[in-house]
Amino acid sequence: MIRRATPADIGTILRFILELAEFEKLAHMVVATEEILTQSLFGANAKAHALIAEVDGEAAGFCIYFYNFSTFLGRPGIYIEDIYVTPEQRSHGLGKCFFEYLAAKAADEKCGRLEWWVLNWNQRAIDFYTRLGAEPMDEWTVYRVSGDHLAALALPKEIA
Amino acid sequence: MIRRATPADIGTILRFILELAEFEKLAHMVVATEEILTQSLFGANAKAHALIAEVDGEAAGFCIYFYNFSTFLGRPGIYIEDIYVTPEQRSHGLGKCFFEYLAAKAADEKCGRLEWWVLNWNQRAIDFYTRLGAEPMDEWTVYRVSGDHLAALALPKEIA
Repeated sequence: MIRRATPADIGTILRFILELAEFEKLAHMVVATEEILTQSLFGANAKAHALIAEVDGEAAGFCIYFYNFSTFLGRPGIYIEDIYVTPEQRSHGLGKCFFEYLAAKAADEKCGRLEWWVLNWNQRAIDFYTRLGAEPMDEWTVYRVSGDHLAALALPKEIA
Repeated sequence: MIRRATPADIGTILRFILELAEFEKLAHMVVATEEILTQSLFGANAKAHALIAEVDGEAAGFCIYFYNFSTFLGRPGIYIEDIYVTPEQRSHGLGKCFFEYLAAKAADEKCGRLEWWVLNWNQRAIDFYTRLGAEPMDEWTVYRVSGDHLAALALPKEIA
């Protein structure tokens, strides 16, 4: 069963985020706390949304998504930031349940696309996405500016 | 000068979107209309925001952005969907003005990152981004499901 997360799930979500980061070999990058997550997912200005997968009443995975926007389509899409299923519940179709849930939501809200990133070495995930009918956008590369470079870029301007 | 777009700019924005798509060799993909764009940028449930660059009181470019979210940081970032400067105004620093404006906005709103995609063949843009201190996220690939595949995925589920 897939359901919307509530503030009572924050402890579980943070634990899952840490497990996912461990799997992605990126655990050193996690600086989120329960307080920051509560604000970001349930605060007045929340931009992201969380889902929980339950098996026999126990949380077995989570998903975080937000809305992006396609200029060419002129309409929003859904971007999946994370999908995670606990090791003991993997291979039972929960991952696909999240995709089906979000595809239905996209249809319901007239969103044109579901998009997400995958680490290039995660072949098992890539095979799964290919079976879903997803296509790699490999003519594009994502660029990011953060940290000191972002601060330096911000210096000369005041925003209107 | 960079300013927020208003509904009166929609005609200009759509014209710029078409010029940008032409440059990206993706003009066949544009299905946006003034009506759809007005709804998406200024409607009650708008997820995306537009900026206009002006030179001598004339629109010389546009930028569309929205908020994304980093699970690891536990906070939002700004994703730049499009930046476009008209051919006659290029090489005068307007592109950088958009980045500076959004970097200042990111700092102001405690967003951790600016991110965007670039077409791999657009070396002039890549060189510019590198000078800004941006880094390619080339260990990741974006996947997308849309159209018939998205509709098929949505079929079995009702959303809660």
